[in-house]
Amino acid sequence: MIRFNNDYNHGAHPAILEALTRTNDTQFSGYGTDEWCDKAERLILDQCQCPQGKVYFFPGATQANLVTIAAFLGSCDSVICASTGHINGHECASIENTGHKILALPQQDGKITAGQIEKEARAYYEAGEAEWLTRPSLVYISFTTEYGTLYSKAELTAISEVCRKYGMALFVDGARLAYGLASPENDLTLPDLARLADAFYLGGTKCGALFGEALVLTHPETVRRFKASMKQNGAVLAKGWLLGLQFCTLLQDGLYFKMAARADAFALKIRDAFRKKGIPEYVVSPTNQQFVLLTPEQAAHLEKKYAFEREGTLEDGRLLVRFCTSWSTKEGEVEALVADIANA
Amino acid sequence: MIRFNNDYNHGAHPAILEALTRTNDTQFSGYGTDEWCDKAERLILDQCQCPQGKVYFFPGATQANLVTIAAFLGSCDSVICASTGHINGHECASIENTGHKILALPQQDGKITAGQIEKEARAYYEAGEAEWLTRPSLVYISFTTEYGTLYSKAELTAISEVCRKYGMALFVDGARLAYGLASPENDLTLPDLARLADAFYLGGTKCGALFGEALVLTHPETVRRFKASMKQNGAVLAKGWLLGLQFCTLLQDGLYFKMAARADAFALKIRDAFRKKGIPEYVVSPTNQQFVLLTPEQAAHLEKKYAFEREGTLEDGRLLVRFCTSWSTKEGEVEALVADIANA
Amino acid sequence: MIRFNNDYNHGAHPAILEALTRTNDTQFSGYGTDEWCDKAERLILDQCQCPQGKVYFFPGATQANLVTIAAFLGSCDSVICASTGHINGHECASIENTGHKILALPQQDGKITAGQIEKEARAYYEAGEAEWLTRPSLVYISFTTEYGTLYSKAELTAISEVCRKYGMALFVDGARLAYGLASPENDLTLPDLARLADAFYLGGTKCGALFGEALVLTHPETVRRFKASMKQNGAVLAKGWLLGLQFCTLLQDGLYFKMAARADAFALKIRDAFRKKGIPEYVVSPTNQQFVLLTPEQAAHLEKKYAFEREGTLEDGRLLVRFCTSWSTKEGEVEALVADIANA
Amino acid sequence: MIRFNNDYNHGAHPAILEALTRTNDTQFSGYGTDEWCDKAERLILDQCQCPQGKVYFFPGATQANLVTIAAFLGSCDSVICASTGHINGHECASIENTGHKILALPQQDGKITAGQIEKEARAYYEAGEAEWLTRPSLVYISFTTEYGTLYSKAELTAISEVCRKYGMALFVDGARLAYGLASPENDLTLPDLARLADAFYLGGTKCGALFGEALVLTHPETVRRFKASMKQNGAVLAKGWLLGLQFCTLLQDGLYFKMAARADAFALKIRDAFRKKGIPEYVVSPTNQQFVLLTPEQAAHLEKKYAFEREGTLEDGRLLVRFCTSWSTKEGEVEALVADIANA
Repeated sequence: MIRFNNDYNHGAHPAILEALTRTNDTQFSGYGTDEWCDKAERLILDQCQCPQGKVYFFPGATQANLVTIAAFLGSCDSVICASTGHINGHECASIENTGHKILALPQQDGKITAGQIEKEARAYYEAGEAEWLTRPSLVYISFTTEYGTLYSKAELTAISEVCRKYGMALFVDGARLAYGLASPENDLTLPDLARLADAFYLGGTKCGALFGEALVLTHPETVRRFKASMKQNGAVLAKGWLLGLQFCTLLQDGLYFKMAARADAFALKIRDAFRKKGIPEYVVSPTNQQFVLLTPEQAAHLEKKYAFEREGTLEDGRLLVRFCTSWSTKEGEVEALVADIANA
Repeated sequence: MIRFNNDYNHGAHPAILEALTRTNDTQFSGYGTDEWCDKAERLILDQCQCPQGKVYFFPGATQANLVTIAAFLGSCDSVICASTGHINGHECASIENTGHKILALPQQDGKITAGQIEKEARAYYEAGEAEWLTRPSLVYISFTTEYGTLYSKAELTAISEVCRKYGMALFVDGARLAYGLASPENDLTLPDLARLADAFYLGGTKCGALFGEALVLTHPETVRRFKASMKQNGAVLAKGWLLGLQFCTLLQDGLYFKMAARADAFALKIRDAFRKKGIPEYVVSPTNQQFVLLTPEQAAHLEKKYAFEREGTLEDGRLLVRFCTSWSTKEGEVEALVADIANA
Repeated sequence: MIRFNNDYNHGAHPAILEALTRTNDTQFSGYGTDEWCDKAERLILDQCQCPQGKVYFFPGATQANLVTIAAFLGSCDSVICASTGHINGHECASIENTGHKILALPQQDGKITAGQIEKEARAYYEAGEAEWLTRPSLVYISFTTEYGTLYSKAELTAISEVCRKYGMALFVDGARLAYGLASPENDLTLPDLARLADAFYLGGTKCGALFGEALVLTHPETVRRFKASMKQNGAVLAKGWLLGLQFCTLLQDGLYFKMAARADAFALKIRDAFRKKGIPEYVVSPTNQQFVLLTPEQAAHLEKKYAFEREGTLEDGRLLVRFCTSWSTKEGEVEALVADIANA
Repeated sequence: MIRFNNDYNHGAHPAILEALTRTNDTQFSGYGTDEWCDKAERLILDQCQCPQGKVYFFPGATQANLVTIAAFLGSCDSVICASTGHINGHECASIENTGHKILALPQQDGKITAGQIEKEARAYYEAGEAEWLTRPSLVYISFTTEYGTLYSKAELTAISEVCRKYGMALFVDGARLAYGLASPENDLTLPDLARLADAFYLGGTKCGALFGEALVLTHPETVRRFKASMKQNGAVLAKGWLLGLQFCTLLQDGLYFKMAARADAFALKIRDAFRKKGIPEYVVSPTNQQFVLLTPEQAAHLEKKYAFEREGTLEDGRLLVRFCTSWSTKEGEVEALVADIANA
């Protein structure tokens, strides 16, 4: 079985394991107060051109999402996101569990627009900030989105402007940030993200690390006791240097982006194979996740050899499925899949 | 600087890193649904003689504590623990953040007694389960305690009996379980724990793993949707096999207990050195944490060469400090410390 | 200014004030443990033919909603309701504040159907109760709805059957229950509600009382420590007899239903006046709330003399407005409005 | 049976019922946006000499406590109070249910001192605001305390200064404020409270009203969306004028203080009777609650004719009991009790 089912089915890039092995006999201080976390923070802030920022390392993305969102919100505030936003349907109401309402907006290709966001914010102010309404105080978007799509620089700029106009924070879930930044269709950079967003993270778990996400707060002075919030939710790893070390390894020579570019290129080859075969895409994605519509027969045929994710069934009986590549995908695996699609 | 400051200042036992490297090129299914988690669960339940149990792997101990406690409690229920309990003073109100009150009892050497617990439970029932009172529904203890001490089999049995009498769950924080079970003064076994407690965990982070804790629910049918609670709190690791694999490595040939026995023996050598020097223990601990009272001069002298943790200052000016050994402590480090204590 | 803006703009039916005055010199025991609360409970359970039930008195409806819903839900459970449900848009995320997600379904005339509910419940089970999904565990509907409409006995029976099939509780927000039961188009009775729902309340605040709602739990054994949940949320009135006494006054001679029938009849007269004038209803309501579409000119004209609630503006510029009658509406007020509508 | 068991066993002062009856035929706008709430706010702020303040009316004291405390706290902040504080043992963990830890300090006669509070605050800062600690951000005291005792102006000033020094809010639970201010031993005034505290309330439920508490925020700009927090917790009464009207009635001619002074005087007569009889006070209280130690025989004798509250049993078998007077206590009732104590 060859796994295209997700982008977290392998351990870590070998350079990560080498780094862990190399430092295994060294003693470090705990809870992220070590030299590797410091170095990783400086690397990230340098690459983001965001000297005033702060970086926090989380073991996983659900924690990063819930701790960050709750840290920005007052008790009667709510979050705007796409109905397909990961926090809305894939994290067991982790946001509501912190006491906050999600205002889920209709999405197009996994994205929401500045116009939609502004309408939602304006409704609150037009109602006179009535006490029975929550204040939309943060906008959550994913880059890449849950459908593998990208916000353009123009789109993200417009969203950022609306957020600032209405006093809302902008938070970008970057679990797959590497695949987005490395896509040939992307026009955003790390400094753009740091300039436009209040918080975003460089995903590690899905992008070459064993585990871990590096969260950047671009205006850390606006958030009170962020590390205490992390601790309260069990998100401060005792051996914090494990995270700092991994991000140093990924970022110091561009490994993070090289791996992602390779995975994106593989995904586009698979996309081409589907197109040639006349198998329709559900959403046009320029990154490592490809969503296509298969007949049950096609799906059954490919499932003999490949693992991929069934996402749902259309009314006409076709299956919506996802094929993922990652930093660990091998060229031969892609070639085999491409050949088998052609013969499907 | 030689670190005796805590038991989580090194990476992992080399066998763990070898296992991670050996399996790094294999594909696994996610979120703990892989073969290593299955195997680790079977190993643990076998060693606990608890076939009806279930095992869940957490990235860290604060998460294990808060998710497990909240899963056992109804919305008007509270937790009994020692005032020194880790959840009461070291986890930033993570339990209160889930909406529950901690009833913190006075401790002796880090421990509470069945008698204290019964008195607290009885008070609730004698008040007619009044609506203004929380129901004590879970007892949290640590083994080893925050002072390195142990509950004996007789003590734990008495506590377990009180818990069952009053319908309270018994939860044992086992972040340092290995050091407790391996102590020469211990008379408890894994099967005892499984028989007496409703939930407990085998700590990995402080006992040889890179990170991770293996929680055992001995009566899993009493808890609804436990894995969903984990997910909601971001405690389900995407690459779950990383945890299963580590616990297989630690448990399949007794490595877990051998490493802990060695660390305990080192700690007792250090204790002996303090005793010979006439430096008083704050608490008599038979495990890997030693708490002693140093004069400021003694502390300053030892701090030139060793890292240890200052816990507080007594009224008479003496410092309460902690020396920790761990699976990573080296014989030469202990010998050096023992010599330096003698010369202090 | 004549107020048709809501149904809570007057104190209480004179019989209520008389009862309060008559008993003002009597001493009672506190927190709902008095004879009036007992008597009101018996009256209500008798009229509901629900001897096994329990009745709890709340000061207000938002409290009744949030305490009851949270009491029925486990920590990873969610609530199904109409997008227009009062808990979804008018109570400042009080449900999310208890940690629970609302699954808001598209509504028709303020109502949702058994089919919609079943689809939502089935989706959870078809996904294998996946840990990233909340379990829909309670269905919240309002009777009358937020648009004044009614569920028929057939509709409520179908919803109740779906709820039981999927292990979901059914909770009916009865803030305007009297107006619903008294409507000429209604075919439901208190015993029907008690048989079909797990919890519902007889609203007092909007139906003749100074304040207060009487919640019926039809299977009280399924909810643990309900009164403690009330206390925890500040919903146990110290002078509980004030609530018991009011419900005795309303219910012992049918006053509750007579007042509501009169208010409904007034509302239908107003509806007729709008129909005669060709002013369209937004929703066809057979109860005390009437929603119509006015031109800005019509609205401005009527607002000179009458208070009514502006609910929003349609794309074509027309205003959606609400006219409410209540137990306190006077015949002359209705006649004046009817005449002024004719002349608008 | 003559009730001295509490101070909320009667309806309301007749002037309150008269006011409710007089205004019953008037229409008001809802949710506290009416003229009576405005007038009551002005009266209160005038009497407090606090023109910059804001007043919010709550149906009950538990709600006032939990909403106010949560509004002042960030997510990792805690509350300091006496171990006997009402929020700590009588409100079913309502504060923890909002996610916050209570730091309960040992009390003397129901009171805590500025010194104790400073020590607690300093510990947090001396630990470097460590992420595993909550920040003490609010001090909660009761006036009168749960034992009927008073803070002097010097004591409250010292507490207020510590609070300001460490950036903590000071909140005074005034459920029995009237009895405190009216006591012959009191040296505090409403303007003192407004100057020294950030929030406090004038209790209505126990001081002559049917129900309701009037909360004063002395620096309302420091709290974001307070009324939304009230709404979220169901604490905004639909017919808000019922509260405003009651406080106008109580405050406009000093009725509030006259009633309380009378009740205090009655309580001191009862205290004298116990003293003459040699029955010891548990705490020396100068207000309407008297705590004495009775033998079981004395208690049984008095319970034939009087209701009073048993609070607990001492090790020597004596009973700690409470006798309360209130605005509704009659002179004859006190005379009868005084005589019966003498004959006990």
